[in-house]
Amino acid sequence: KINPDRLWQSLMETARIGGTPEGGIARLTLSEDDAKVRAWLAAQTAALGMTLVVDEVGNMFATLPGRNPNLAPIAMGSHLDTQPTGGKFDGVLGVLAGLEVLRSLKDAGLTTEAPLMLVNWTNEEGSRFSPAMLGSGVWAGVYSRAEADARQDAAGESFGAALDAIGWRGTARAGSQRFAAMFELHIEQGPVLEAEGKEIGIVTGVQGLRWFEARLTGCAAHTGSTPMTMRRNALLGAARVIEAVDAIGLAHAPHAVATVGFLEVSPNSNNVIPGQVDFTIDLRHPDDAVLAQMEADLRAAFDTAAGGIGLEGDLRRISKVDAVRFDADCIASVRAGAERAGVCGREIISGAGHDAVHCAAVAPTVMIFVPSEGGLSHNPAEATSAAECATGTQVLLDAVLAHDRL
Amino acid sequence: KINPDRLWQSLMETARIGGTPEGGIARLTLSEDDAKVRAWLAAQTAALGMTLVVDEVGNMFATLPGRNPNLAPIAMGSHLDTQPTGGKFDGVLGVLAGLEVLRSLKDAGLTTEAPLMLVNWTNEEGSRFSPAMLGSGVWAGVYSRAEADARQDAAGESFGAALDAIGWRGTARAGSQRFAAMFELHIEQGPVLEAEGKEIGIVTGVQGLRWFEARLTGCAAHTGSTPMTMRRNALLGAARVIEAVDAIGLAHAPHAVATVGFLEVSPNSNNVIPGQVDFTIDLRHPDDAVLAQMEADLRAAFDTAAGGIGLEGDLRRISKVDAVRFDADCIASVRAGAERAGVCGREIISGAGHDAVHCAAVAPTVMIFVPSEGGLSHNPAEATSAAECATGTQVLLDAVLAHDRL
Ligand SMILES: NC(=O)NCCC(=O)O
Ligand SMILES: NC(=O)NCCC(=O)O
Repeated sequence: KINPDRLWQSLMETARIGGTPEGGIARLTLSEDDAKVRAWLAAQTAALGMTLVVDEVGNMFATLPGRNPNLAPIAMGSHLDTQPTGGKFDGVLGVLAGLEVLRSLKDAGLTTEAPLMLVNWTNEEGSRFSPAMLGSGVWAGVYSRAEADARQDAAGESFGAALDAIGWRGTARAGSQRFAAMFELHIEQGPVLEAEGKEIGIVTGVQGLRWFEARLTGCAAHTGSTPMTMRRNALLGAARVIEAVDAIGLAHAPHAVATVGFLEVSPNSNNVIPGQVDFTIDLRHPDDAVLAQMEADLRAAFDTAAGGIGLEGDLRRISKVDAVRFDADCIASVRAGAERAGVCGREIISGAGHDAVHCAAVAPTVMIFVPSEGGLSHNPAEATSAAECATGTQVLLDAVLAHDRL
Repeated sequence: KINPDRLWQSLMETARIGGTPEGGIARLTLSEDDAKVRAWLAAQTAALGMTLVVDEVGNMFATLPGRNPNLAPIAMGSHLDTQPTGGKFDGVLGVLAGLEVLRSLKDAGLTTEAPLMLVNWTNEEGSRFSPAMLGSGVWAGVYSRAEADARQDAAGESFGAALDAIGWRGTARAGSQRFAAMFELHIEQGPVLEAEGKEIGIVTGVQGLRWFEARLTGCAAHTGSTPMTMRRNALLGAARVIEAVDAIGLAHAPHAVATVGFLEVSPNSNNVIPGQVDFTIDLRHPDDAVLAQMEADLRAAFDTAAGGIGLEGDLRRISKVDAVRFDADCIASVRAGAERAGVCGREIISGAGHDAVHCAAVAPTVMIFVPSEGGLSHNPAEATSAAECATGTQVLLDAVLAHDRL
């Protein structure tokens, strides 16, 4: 049995690292606060007698030996970075639940057959450095280390420079740390479990996602003396793309989602017609064929918006993560763990992307969801109760033990 | 006769203060570079034996005595601040042309009846601290000093703190410095003079302008797991307002202009549905009745955009400058000056706002325009030739002398 109070206390303790007045966490990847929470985690795993390896993109792997040194470890974990308006649970729960499982086993004097591993992936959120799930993506060979190092934040600082600056670049080659299976506990970040009164989601897969960076270039000019007919207003073009992106999401209902979440205007002055607008587009669907159609719709809408008012347009896809189905044996372990813990769950497809998506390409993987109040996430008001966190963590423990018995 | 080379050299010399690689100037009001160019101007007027008074919002007034100490001065001037993507002529030309007039009179050993005054107004652009024409507005009593001091830039620094920080807050009460007439030379910032092959514009008035600050508030949430139908996307609302603002400009053709130039998204992350968007709206028309209708159209469109998708909306007008007709005697002096200089001009209404608008409410005022290549302004590529600058400055000299004879 896991210790619910200790779990909750660890959640609240780390929530102060980058904590915001709104009650959330703003702990952007590779920030000073990221370094602090990493040091905290390293100290906790050291206290459990675990061996920590950090790879060249900052992914952290802490291992506890099992009875059989020839077995590859069973891994648990998620990420400790957050959105600028992050809540207290997204990612953090998966890491701290794994830590609680390890602590509970130690308290009970139990040793598993296989070694156990706790993982903290670098830059899952993709908010400071896109794309999302970058650390696990390099680990899985989807991106190279050089590609990751070159990514820049809005201030022009590179991922590589930021990683070096906080002192968390390890020496292990990305991908050298392997495991036999990965169990990621996460909040749902959507409304389904709460609406149906289910305690956990047995996640059978993750929908596909495609991210794009767009630039529209017109001509900066005076708002007062430039006739409407002589304008090349980049923001007007962007407004039309935003409207079109929303329409694409609605057109492929009910499962499609499509969003412009980031947008920057240049020169961004009251009395200057915008000369340039940079923005991102996020398209998702559980069916890759529909997602491909959504991308085609986007490209057509983008060209129409740009061409219609004489703008130059540049639209680049910066990430494409296909829909994933998780491993049947791992799913069975979660189902067995839920039964053992006496918890009521349902199968579910994840709307959000997760490091588990990249793990699934390399090793048997599964996820466990707990409910999110109002389906809200990437918001300081993100809420999952202490009891719900504990239930998910208990299922994680029982699932890992079930898998260890296989 | 003015000295065209000296004028051009002063333009190029000061263009280096805040000069950009693109060939423009980024000399935001109350920046370090603003302080530098102010010091430069103070040194030049001191060298001409002029007396400098700085008022409590940083407006600079340098006076050269005339033969008759009982006469109020005839003023020339404009502003030395620029847009973030400013060119080399907007505002700067009016100040340096006035300086060149004073230097030429000194070279020629001429003294006018009335004293002459050279004015540099603070924060004409309104880009860092809205509204535009703030220094002249306080001088004219349209805004109080306290209102000006409280205005904040995007980084949260106040106008008052910035003015104190660069050390250019004077002791003279705003409005205490008066003049008998104001002549402001400026680039047209529009396409008319170039298109018609006219060397100068005799500016008979300025269209009205109204500026608004808008905020739309929705709910930040996860882009991947929040169904389209559960969203309150503030950026989608803003996109609809941007489209509506453009339509309002087109609907009141040919003289209306309507623009969203500034927009900021929060939290501005690829995978977060925008929870809040702040932006500005700039509406202008030569006829105040039409402008009032445009404002009504904006308010209706804003409410529709916000209400349609469950956003909270806040729309506040932050400036209202009615259309202005300049003084008939001053216009006659410009016409006389142009004739004397043998220059071909036409009457024109200004599309841009100018400090002269506020001056006109207090003293007889007029403006002189020179052509802008391609009508382009608020852009580093803003271009007026040395010959065109010289022609405008010669007309300024002749107009001031004509007025002095009245
Ligand atoms: N779980 C989560 O919020 N991941 C961030 C990547 C995404 O946008 O789905
Ligand atoms: N002349 C000029 O660009 N003034 C700035 C105020 C305005 O936007 O018209």
